[in-house]
Amino acid sequence: MKKVYIGVDVGGMSIKAGLVDDNGKILVKGTRKTNSKTEGKEGFLKDIKDLMHEMIDKAREIECEVLAIGFGIPGVVNIVKGTIDYACNLYVEDVPLKDYLKDLNLPIFLSNDANVAALGEVRFGAAKGYKDVILLTLGTGIGGGVVIDDKLFEGVEGKGAELGHTTIVVDGHECGCGRRGCFEAYASASALLALTKSEMLNNKNSMMWDYCGHNIDDVSGLTSFECAKKGDEAANKVINTYVKYLSEGILNFCNIFRPQAILIGGGISNQGDYLIDKVIAYCKKFHYGYKNTPEVEIKVATLKNDAGIIGSACLAMDMLKK
Amino acid sequence: MKKVYIGVDVGGMSIKAGLVDDNGKILVKGTRKTNSKTEGKEGFLKDIKDLMHEMIDKAREIECEVLAIGFGIPGVVNIVKGTIDYACNLYVEDVPLKDYLKDLNLPIFLSNDANVAALGEVRFGAAKGYKDVILLTLGTGIGGGVVIDDKLFEGVEGKGAELGHTTIVVDGHECGCGRRGCFEAYASASALLALTKSEMLNNKNSMMWDYCGHNIDDVSGLTSFECAKKGDEAANKVINTYVKYLSEGILNFCNIFRPQAILIGGGISNQGDYLIDKVIAYCKKFHYGYKNTPEVEIKVATLKNDAGIIGSACLAMDMLKK
Repeated sequence: MKKVYIGVDVGGMSIKAGLVDDNGKILVKGTRKTNSKTEGKEGFLKDIKDLMHEMIDKAREIECEVLAIGFGIPGVVNIVKGTIDYACNLYVEDVPLKDYLKDLNLPIFLSNDANVAALGEVRFGAAKGYKDVILLTLGTGIGGGVVIDDKLFEGVEGKGAELGHTTIVVDGHECGCGRRGCFEAYASASALLALTKSEMLNNKNSMMWDYCGHNIDDVSGLTSFECAKKGDEAANKVINTYVKYLSEGILNFCNIFRPQAILIGGGISNQGDYLIDKVIAYCKKFHYGYKNTPEVEIKVATLKNDAGIIGSACLAMDMLKK
Repeated sequence: MKKVYIGVDVGGMSIKAGLVDDNGKILVKGTRKTNSKTEGKEGFLKDIKDLMHEMIDKAREIECEVLAIGFGIPGVVNIVKGTIDYACNLYVEDVPLKDYLKDLNLPIFLSNDANVAALGEVRFGAAKGYKDVILLTLGTGIGGGVVIDDKLFEGVEGKGAELGHTTIVVDGHECGCGRRGCFEAYASASALLALTKSEMLNNKNSMMWDYCGHNIDDVSGLTSFECAKKGDEAANKVINTYVKYLSEGILNFCNIFRPQAILIGGGISNQGDYLIDKVIAYCKKFHYGYKNTPEVEIKVATLKNDAGIIGSACLAMDMLKK
């Protein structure tokens, strides 16, 4: 009987699960709407258990044996207790996930979503075959995932690798975490939006106004990128500022980890080479950190929407081997 | 026959070696003046080899067998090739250390000095029994050492863990590495001196002028600390600013690594609890990084002047086990 793992990508909109084999292939998928905002902790847990039963049944149908379940959580977890401590996108706190699922009689593992995505990219994505890799997901916030010596690095209770919450501008912009000047407050998609709007208000003639139909509420992560590509000066200023802050953070992680590669994921990474080439040019100018050091490969993450399912399954595979 | 390791602390003034046993005890010490500035690479290597022969002879005298040699280097090394790539305090570049010592017929290992010091503290110092620890040495620059899962983390070629070269103020003070706003440019002993002098020039009535005999060239790392303890307002301002930048860096490493402990070493750490209490108070205010996270123990490193010898010997012990 073929061995499979259930990888679960818990998101603010939906919970996506997949049966993943040893080669990182998703054999079957299942999903539930995330109802925690309306149904609370209990409804959320009930839906997850229901989805797990569905996946176990599907595994039986295709003659596979489920060995373990891995979860990628968009928030702060406790990997020792198997709990979700805090996840603002899920509107829940102190969720005893592992305990609630104990009657499934399967090993249950969980970690932060960026962590499992990093592991997935190392096993089956953009960093396949690498052993020391950093992933930065540029979305509403900035998630960080760290793989060291081919193993996920998580810190005490799984609360490390919070790469978005590192101050790059002391006394700078306020961050949701309570500190000021965090990398996340300068290089997330939300930071790009704020930067775009601020520059638009200074430049009433910018092409960006046309692009968003003269409604500043319709500004998106694309606004500055698309107008910069068409030569709009204000948009180019936005992109250059954004690239500078993003690259300063990346240079920090080059010096801290000196990894083989730093991967960029999240919505902004869809800009591909247009973004990556600018980041590499900035980092090259500063020797990727300091003189006499090996260059760090900077590239786009490739698992995209499947990163959560595959990465969570990889977590389960790894933990079983421990 | 008792097994020992030679630990070598290579410094800008002297090269100190010791025979270290499995319990981290230094049985015998030996030393040479660092002559690389006048005698170049060849003289430097010759002295090291001579010192190694002396240590091997001494081991024989006390009926010990040397199993391996570890070096702690104040600069950039290549742990794969066993070379010192760049070390400005030694005035040498591209030193083939491992290759030069091959006729000793002993395994030779080297790493950055802060790295080996961190390992020494974890095995026999302030962090004994801990597995995930960060060491920051506050001296002319800031050295960083990272121990993860009881193993030294070094990055590609041993060029990671450069925690001093992480920007905390984009576009801030110039740093020797070519970037701006590095942690080192705000929280090293040199940064404290610059801050002290600048504040003195703004406050001609500060007690700090008396303390340094009205000669600003005689300002030391003690000037601001000692005058702050006596209630001098300008000195207190210096210390508060210094503590703020130091703590912001420490909070970053809490979020990145979420270690069990962060140790402070180097000259500034002699301020002991007076400094540590202020740093802890600052970090507590920000929940040691962000909410719902375990506190990180912040304490002074304890191996002091022996950290280099003991840490280098620990490196040799670890590498032999690999």
